[in-house]
Amino acid sequence: MPIYTTPVLNINLKKLVENYNLLKELSAPAIAAAVVKDDAYGLGAAEVVNALYAAGCRHYYVAHASEGVLIRPFAPAAEIFVLQGVGEDSLAAVKEARLTPVICSPDMLKFWNCSGDKAIRPAIQIETGLNRLGFTEKDLEKLTAEELQGFSYVLSHLSCADEAAHFMNTHQLENFHRLKARFFPKTPATLSASDGVFLGDEFHFDMTRLGAAMYGINTAPYRPNQMQNILELKAPVLQVKPLPKGEFVGYSATFRAPKEMKIAIVSIGYGDGLPRSLSSRGNVVFYEENKPHFCPILGRVSMDNIICDVSALEKVQTGDFGYLINDDYTVDDIARDAGTIAYELISNLGKNKRFIKSYLA
Amino acid sequence: MPIYTTPVLNINLKKLVENYNLLKELSAPAIAAAVVKDDAYGLGAAEVVNALYAAGCRHYYVAHASEGVLIRPFAPAAEIFVLQGVGEDSLAAVKEARLTPVICSPDMLKFWNCSGDKAIRPAIQIETGLNRLGFTEKDLEKLTAEELQGFSYVLSHLSCADEAAHFMNTHQLENFHRLKARFFPKTPATLSASDGVFLGDEFHFDMTRLGAAMYGINTAPYRPNQMQNILELKAPVLQVKPLPKGEFVGYSATFRAPKEMKIAIVSIGYGDGLPRSLSSRGNVVFYEENKPHFCPILGRVSMDNIICDVSALEKVQTGDFGYLINDDYTVDDIARDAGTIAYELISNLGKNKRFIKSYLA
Repeated sequence: MPIYTTPVLNINLKKLVENYNLLKELSAPAIAAAVVKDDAYGLGAAEVVNALYAAGCRHYYVAHASEGVLIRPFAPAAEIFVLQGVGEDSLAAVKEARLTPVICSPDMLKFWNCSGDKAIRPAIQIETGLNRLGFTEKDLEKLTAEELQGFSYVLSHLSCADEAAHFMNTHQLENFHRLKARFFPKTPATLSASDGVFLGDEFHFDMTRLGAAMYGINTAPYRPNQMQNILELKAPVLQVKPLPKGEFVGYSATFRAPKEMKIAIVSIGYGDGLPRSLSSRGNVVFYEENKPHFCPILGRVSMDNIICDVSALEKVQTGDFGYLINDDYTVDDIARDAGTIAYELISNLGKNKRFIKSYLA
Repeated sequence: MPIYTTPVLNINLKKLVENYNLLKELSAPAIAAAVVKDDAYGLGAAEVVNALYAAGCRHYYVAHASEGVLIRPFAPAAEIFVLQGVGEDSLAAVKEARLTPVICSPDMLKFWNCSGDKAIRPAIQIETGLNRLGFTEKDLEKLTAEELQGFSYVLSHLSCADEAAHFMNTHQLENFHRLKARFFPKTPATLSASDGVFLGDEFHFDMTRLGAAMYGINTAPYRPNQMQNILELKAPVLQVKPLPKGEFVGYSATFRAPKEMKIAIVSIGYGDGLPRSLSSRGNVVFYEENKPHFCPILGRVSMDNIICDVSALEKVQTGDFGYLINDDYTVDDIARDAGTIAYELISNLGKNKRFIKSYLA
């Protein structure tokens, strides 16, 4: 009987590129930019950009300039936009890696005008209803004609694009059209992330910014996911043992066995980025006779282990692997069980060093 | 006006060592081992071990063998225990870095007996009521006298030690005494992590395993924290702007302004490991006239930004820093607001590469 101790994360770059290509088709003729901020949603920006660049992607979005520096070697001829913009702590990185800051406030524009690289044309973010980063209409009124013409792109961001019928979509679209017509009539524009792509052509403008959907997340949950799952997360069973009736399980003894049960201790926990909110809520998927069995997590998720109910399984034993993410239990499924969104889930999971991590290209 | 874009995480190793020393005093004469698994709860195992080793700590716990390999150069003469034990995927690492696996199941013992390094005396984990990893009494009955004498330590783990009056504490203590007397009368023993240290001398045995409390977490929440906070997390304000009455904030438009307000966009989000469950629940602390002001997070936490209500502040502006963790808003405070425990919070935060991260030694 083989024994293993280490959780395994497999990332399918081939399917990621296929997702990108489908989103690119849906976006055309708009440019399809790839959003690889937050270390490509935790999955490894270097590897992801390497694959996308080979597939022809020449426009990228990161949040921080430091992330742009990291990917520049893998995308030498690409334009890399920095969504958090630029400050004293990131100016050197912007210049060094020839990044395009997205200027988000009048203060930041002043800073860029004083300290920026004249060879770089920044983009500008404007406020259309999210009330996050971006110039308000009043801010824009104070800019000179020369300043307004200095931007390579005008950008805004939708707040509710994952709900096709949400009133905010048309509200923001109207605001964007109005502000663009008034201040940026000739500047290329970008409004939509993945979820906006599915809202239709009128949301695409000159460039779409493809993130979550590329990573397999269903950003249009009002209909079946058109994207392929790109992740497989599994962890080995360290021990299978009987749980006598009346015994407690895990920290704070939150689960008590109502009858004699069989439990498996699986070598993964919140220290691996698995949400602790899966305590008594999530599942581990085991396969017997090629059929998936959803085995409930019992009690609290601990830092390195989870305990699950395998009473229904006949053959499970030490060394078997249980699945936390795969085609049968997707990132959206596990995120729902954890009470969060798949974006946060994969961001925390992907960065961990404890996995045996493989990329399928 | 200076502009910044990058969140900052400061880790005070001096206070961490002071916490360790206090816990060591409380544990004496038991050996005070340091738990540095999960990359030292996300804070950087190399740096943490380096500081603790200089302070005299010669016993460490990691979860995975790969973590032991990482810290071995910083603790050359230390004993490093591996809580997840050993398997085919971790045997080479155990041997290479001279680690001490904690054998947790009969199957793992068989594997170690066949493949292990005879120069390494493993430890054994036994089940006393947590129903996680560990030999059951029936498993122990099947071991030979020679096998039982082959372990350097017998280990178990408390499930409810953060509640001083919980019945599980005495229940597990009795089980541990009984099983130790029956199977391991002469083997050194370890039962308690940080929280068990505060339960009193009878829980200390020959070694305590100091983790959470060393990192500043209050593991005895039934009384004021005796530990010092070791973390400071702050993020820059990218923009301050008015929020007109009736406007919505953030994804899914979950917050609507009941009156004209003033908001600050702060450059940190769940992509930095800040829990998304802080949406409309957490705070950002700003200082005016040396007084802390707790400014509520409005709407959803996004990947790179949070939006908070700074209507009560007079002077806040772009380039100011808001605090997410410090002595006024501790890891336990923010974890409570996020509906989780500080262990998970710092584990996810610490691993992110986007911070400007500094260690104060």
